[in-house]
Amino acid sequence: MTPIRVAVLGAGVVGTQVIRLLREQGEELSARVGAPLELVGVAVRRPHQHPDIPAELLTTDAAALVAREDVDVVIEVIGGIDPTKDLLLTALRRGAAVVTANKALLAEEGPALYEAADAAGADLYFEAAVAGAIPLIRPIRESLAGDRISRIMGIVNGTTNFILSAMTADGSSYELALKEATRLGYAEADPTADVDGFDAAAKAAILASIGFHTRVGAADVYREGMADVTAADISAAAELGCVVKLLAICERVNTGTGDAVSARVHPVMLPRAHPLAGVDGAYNAVYVEAESAGRLMFYGPGAGGAPTASAVLGDLVAVARNKISGGRGPRESAYAALPVQPMGEVPSRYHISLDVDDKAGVLAAVATAFAEAGVSISTVRQEGREAEATLVVVTHSAPDAALSATVSRLSELDSVHRVTSVMRVMGDVA
Amino acid sequence: MTPIRVAVLGAGVVGTQVIRLLREQGEELSARVGAPLELVGVAVRRPHQHPDIPAELLTTDAAALVAREDVDVVIEVIGGIDPTKDLLLTALRRGAAVVTANKALLAEEGPALYEAADAAGADLYFEAAVAGAIPLIRPIRESLAGDRISRIMGIVNGTTNFILSAMTADGSSYELALKEATRLGYAEADPTADVDGFDAAAKAAILASIGFHTRVGAADVYREGMADVTAADISAAAELGCVVKLLAICERVNTGTGDAVSARVHPVMLPRAHPLAGVDGAYNAVYVEAESAGRLMFYGPGAGGAPTASAVLGDLVAVARNKISGGRGPRESAYAALPVQPMGEVPSRYHISLDVDDKAGVLAAVATAFAEAGVSISTVRQEGREAEATLVVVTHSAPDAALSATVSRLSELDSVHRVTSVMRVMGDVA
Repeated sequence: MTPIRVAVLGAGVVGTQVIRLLREQGEELSARVGAPLELVGVAVRRPHQHPDIPAELLTTDAAALVAREDVDVVIEVIGGIDPTKDLLLTALRRGAAVVTANKALLAEEGPALYEAADAAGADLYFEAAVAGAIPLIRPIRESLAGDRISRIMGIVNGTTNFILSAMTADGSSYELALKEATRLGYAEADPTADVDGFDAAAKAAILASIGFHTRVGAADVYREGMADVTAADISAAAELGCVVKLLAICERVNTGTGDAVSARVHPVMLPRAHPLAGVDGAYNAVYVEAESAGRLMFYGPGAGGAPTASAVLGDLVAVARNKISGGRGPRESAYAALPVQPMGEVPSRYHISLDVDDKAGVLAAVATAFAEAGVSISTVRQEGREAEATLVVVTHSAPDAALSATVSRLSELDSVHRVTSVMRVMGDVA
Repeated sequence: MTPIRVAVLGAGVVGTQVIRLLREQGEELSARVGAPLELVGVAVRRPHQHPDIPAELLTTDAAALVAREDVDVVIEVIGGIDPTKDLLLTALRRGAAVVTANKALLAEEGPALYEAADAAGADLYFEAAVAGAIPLIRPIRESLAGDRISRIMGIVNGTTNFILSAMTADGSSYELALKEATRLGYAEADPTADVDGFDAAAKAAILASIGFHTRVGAADVYREGMADVTAADISAAAELGCVVKLLAICERVNTGTGDAVSARVHPVMLPRAHPLAGVDGAYNAVYVEAESAGRLMFYGPGAGGAPTASAVLGDLVAVARNKISGGRGPRESAYAALPVQPMGEVPSRYHISLDVDDKAGVLAAVATAFAEAGVSISTVRQEGREAEATLVVVTHSAPDAALSATVSRLSELDSVHRVTSVMRVMGDVA
């Protein structure tokens, strides 16, 4: 049978595993495809750094590799927007299938890639772009294609989950936990993309797009990282029976005038009984709610060379099977074209801790600030100390803008010394 | 665009939901497919019992419906082997795609259906056959197609999990818990298929087949139900830090002379820390271990009309998309053709409770019985009482046949009054 010819762009942590597995398990994979898989080229920057890859496969000219007419599938594991976008467009335009793990590119430039794929009838697969080895893209794009998804919520960044788990387990500070994560290889030298939520926001954009049949880009996702989460926040959460998680939350909401999509990434106090609360360390888990299916959860390793390579190779087998059967995988589905709900309108509950004067009238002043903003208080707890007291307020649901405005006003009250912890709360808490 | 014409066989619990959703959300589903979906017929036994379905769609002649040349997709939700098998063969042979939720048929007659599908280039999809709405077939057949799965282990029967959860929660007997499950609609009037493990065994056969690229039929699955699980077993498990679960376990094992598949369904004492131990009530969860992906878990509602309909409609959208693109979904993948390991050779650990004479030498006699069978004891605990004592033994791993032979011999010892609890143990226990 005519072989399916595969080119790989990049031989880093994921690429190395993809190439190793293609070479070690090529026969097995070919049996599953129904035709031989042949690795015909690997584009890298520095060929001499890859002694394990046969020299005749290596090239520094990625542009020439993706343009080769005999390449049927391009696997992209270099990341970044530029020049990756152009490389993939070149491949798609001449009908090659693309398998990519590039969440940032999909979140920024997904529509352009989809359009090129559609124009040429080519496949664009990206299971590895969200939550590593956990099958998530395929279940949402395909298994749940007959259902109405209302919410996709998950821990999709292992680095920040590792840090938050460590802070929760031993009360350590963010700085110490980050240092440990870096030492163990869970955090990169520059952890910005992870701790500031950029990585999770790109994944939220992808999940919201496929879940709600709407184009949602990285810029549509409200984003708050976890660099400001303190040990005080973690212990405040514990007192509420909660843990702190950095969640990607994608919802289909009814705004009163119609449906909209909300996509956001921020730290949340989550009740310990919630299935996501027990997901610790570098693991990922995504919770999906759909009208007919009910509540589903997907759990597994969210990153790492081998797990991500597993997802890439699953996609490779799929696109190769499509090549043979003459079919195509799912295309972009953006027919719903829902608007994105601004973060200010998203209903939130807040937990707020305040250091206040320990004297009469303070609670009244604080309560007034909430009332004037139209925010209703669910519980308030006062803990007296010598010179000052602490007020812990948990609100009912209110528009996020009203809540953040209230927090600003509170910090301006004379009787409030300091706002020590502010965090959104999810679910039922005391 | 030419519509995709759909026939439904059966309008019971699942069929009713499929038909409702097709009619209520047909436009949405059509947008996702890229062509109109048109329901052209519903085969039922008693048309007058379905006033909600337009009379012109109803027919009692299922054979004529599946033979109609204008039907593109046949959805089968009647169950059973006969005449269902022939109906689906007729549909597949003339190139219609089949979407079925029929685990028993797939486990018994899967190869015949696959062969007919392959001969005609037709699709055969069955996401709903295992674990209701939980995407599992597609992740295993497609997402993990680039990986080597070593184990698939899960709670795949909601009825028995509901009963075991109730017995664990309140110490009630099997009979009482079954009565309650029946009252609440979680158990059928004749619960045999569930409590005797036939349902779970059919699902294990399907999971082992697709996970290990080998034909595994229902008859290849070792099966023990949970009707003999007693309140004493449950409390013995609790003393070990375990819960009792009825698991479907599919493993790829190295027998020394090569790889083999083990597929079995039986009650297990599972440590509370295991992710499956916390899955309670009618929920299902499946744990998958793969060489590159690591450990994955899938969790959700395993049965019910709407969840199962969600899985059926996801498959409908998939096969309809394939019809339009001219492609095909995954075929049978049975190239590995591994042998099935007999249960007697499967390495097991046993928990055994014995009522024995409270006198010197009993432990020695019991220990000798284990030793003579080549079974090594991990822990033994003796609880004295007035007239007699209880011995609780947990073994190391040994071939299942050696363990069951040992249990028979123990019950023949004069000093052993009664074997009160025997159950396989999984994982690390004290």
